[in-house]
Amino acid sequence: MSVDPVELTQRLVRCPSVTPDEGGALSLLEELLSGAGFACTRVERNGVQNLFARWGDGGNARVFGFNGHTDVVPVGDREAWTHDPFGAEIVDGVLYGRGATDMKSGVAAFVAAAVEFVRETPPEGSVVLAITGDEEGDAVDGTRALLDWMAEHGERMDVCLVGEPTCPETMGEMIKIGRRGSLTAHITATGVQGHSAYPHRAKNPLPAMAKLVDRLSSATLDEGTEHFDPSTLAVTTVDTGNPANNVIPAACRAGVNIRFNDAHSSASLTEWLQAEANKVAVETGIDIAMTVKVSGESFLTPPGDLSDLVAKAVQAETGVAPKLSTTGGTSDARFVKDHCPVVEFGLVGQTMHQVDERVEVAQIAQLKGIYTRILRDYFA
Amino acid sequence: MSVDPVELTQRLVRCPSVTPDEGGALSLLEELLSGAGFACTRVERNGVQNLFARWGDGGNARVFGFNGHTDVVPVGDREAWTHDPFGAEIVDGVLYGRGATDMKSGVAAFVAAAVEFVRETPPEGSVVLAITGDEEGDAVDGTRALLDWMAEHGERMDVCLVGEPTCPETMGEMIKIGRRGSLTAHITATGVQGHSAYPHRAKNPLPAMAKLVDRLSSATLDEGTEHFDPSTLAVTTVDTGNPANNVIPAACRAGVNIRFNDAHSSASLTEWLQAEANKVAVETGIDIAMTVKVSGESFLTPPGDLSDLVAKAVQAETGVAPKLSTTGGTSDARFVKDHCPVVEFGLVGQTMHQVDERVEVAQIAQLKGIYTRILRDYFA
Repeated sequence: MSVDPVELTQRLVRCPSVTPDEGGALSLLEELLSGAGFACTRVERNGVQNLFARWGDGGNARVFGFNGHTDVVPVGDREAWTHDPFGAEIVDGVLYGRGATDMKSGVAAFVAAAVEFVRETPPEGSVVLAITGDEEGDAVDGTRALLDWMAEHGERMDVCLVGEPTCPETMGEMIKIGRRGSLTAHITATGVQGHSAYPHRAKNPLPAMAKLVDRLSSATLDEGTEHFDPSTLAVTTVDTGNPANNVIPAACRAGVNIRFNDAHSSASLTEWLQAEANKVAVETGIDIAMTVKVSGESFLTPPGDLSDLVAKAVQAETGVAPKLSTTGGTSDARFVKDHCPVVEFGLVGQTMHQVDERVEVAQIAQLKGIYTRILRDYFA
Repeated sequence: MSVDPVELTQRLVRCPSVTPDEGGALSLLEELLSGAGFACTRVERNGVQNLFARWGDGGNARVFGFNGHTDVVPVGDREAWTHDPFGAEIVDGVLYGRGATDMKSGVAAFVAAAVEFVRETPPEGSVVLAITGDEEGDAVDGTRALLDWMAEHGERMDVCLVGEPTCPETMGEMIKIGRRGSLTAHITATGVQGHSAYPHRAKNPLPAMAKLVDRLSSATLDEGTEHFDPSTLAVTTVDTGNPANNVIPAACRAGVNIRFNDAHSSASLTEWLQAEANKVAVETGIDIAMTVKVSGESFLTPPGDLSDLVAKAVQAETGVAPKLSTTGGTSDARFVKDHCPVVEFGLVGQTMHQVDERVEVAQIAQLKGIYTRILRDYFA
């Protein structure tokens, strides 16, 4: 059995697996992998679907793991797409669709590589694929559930490669050896409702929220550290929901997402956010409340055997010497790192989460080649 | 024929004339006024009902006009009312019902005053009553339709008294000689959607909107003018609707309502808003678009003959020396002012638009007395 990674990407894109919907994507992979001799287990926790697949007996010999996700972020402004976001159309060598880069192509590439590798050169050892349906959402019952299930059932990975898009512009240019941490603050400003014509009788929460958002957006968190880029802050939403232009609203909500390096912790940033909010509250007389949800602290897999293995394969297949980086968003590597050494390597991620998300089909085939070479070198 | 203004208020409150329903209120007045010798015309435009009534021949002699409305705002939370909102019950000298103050009692008072005045002391001149069924709604086919119809048919008022509630707490304390203008700006900031982890690849519209909202909210429009309080600006809503904390949104919308005095016009304020938006757009690289909807320009009937006439009558009947004011929301006086000098005087408006809207019946009789004295003095 041979798997075409481009065709498999297309079939996966056509599964509408917007988090938390499985959308048929994991079932498709389960059927394919079972047919190729992988022992498959659907790991479900709190309604979230995940897929664990192992080729080999998982005994004492080496176990190489891949990790990825089949869920995707929402389509966004459907009208702005020039192609069906679930159509997987290929035009001039480019495949369009939600998840085309993040990361159905990555999953398709490592599935195709693993199936071909174990068929053509069955290794002494095992290949594990840990694929989740919840990476873009809360990620509480996704890769974490898979890792918990693996620990309970004596399953392991000795090393793990996460197939997320990692290259900013050119295929092969970047391997990720760590990630910044991430937290989201949910902020509510509460004043007193009233009539627009009599603002002195009301307390409008919106100017206070605007002041806070302006200050947070303007702040420099740090200038970067040895292995990390500067931390970043993005205000992701501000909402009031007041349809009446003659009414001053009582409350307003905002969301702020921070990606932070090892100069900070979620605790130090929470303290800073709280202090900024308190300052604005005192200046404006508006009550400002905040809850902070931490997705993960920052972490690092120091340069070594695993990053060397991946870097050599990348250079051999692409001619590009990859940089070891810790840039970008969180990924499930933040969970895997508690289990075994983990690095990330995948496609060019420029259009991820955007309208008209797309991937060059030639890069999918190239990625499959890199993953195959990594497996070959690892088990050599 | 004599008209009891309290009983007429009750009969009007019992007509369920929630905008745009006529509810029988104008028909009731038409029948009553026709019987008292007024020439009545139902002026209908785009399905909205209005009533024009004239006593006298409308020739070269002086014409005194009253303006008011019989439509009312919706009941709101019916369960919270302690009396039937269309029952017009009188308990301990207080009449309860939707429209009790705004402004069926005012209409009843000027109708009763006019009927009695023309019967007892027929003037050399005319009395016009211009009563609309659409003041609380869009007001496009209400008093404006009446004024258009009057112009087409050679009808006029030399001065006009609008019978809206004008007194904040005590009967007689306030005459309105003008109103602030009102406009609402709908602002959209548009950037480029992206991943929260890669803010440099997206263009987040939220910091730009926050900056603009902060600046607009912090601006002092003026310190007030001779006859007006300071202009006020209220940001009424900011909305994004982005549920995903890992997505930087493409766009954000805000609403800004300005109540402005005669130091400004809607055109000068639109220009200012546009200039502030452009500054932020240039600073941030975010596209900011704006549409402005003008509810009315500010206007003033400078203190003079008409306000003196009304003030003297108020003081004679109540013992209170009324203040000349330009505070509060818009009213149909904003249309009448293009036709003739106009002032507003009516009851205490504390419960208007509220649950358990109510009026002291003694004040209705007092208001009728004031209106009668105004007519007598005007034609003396």
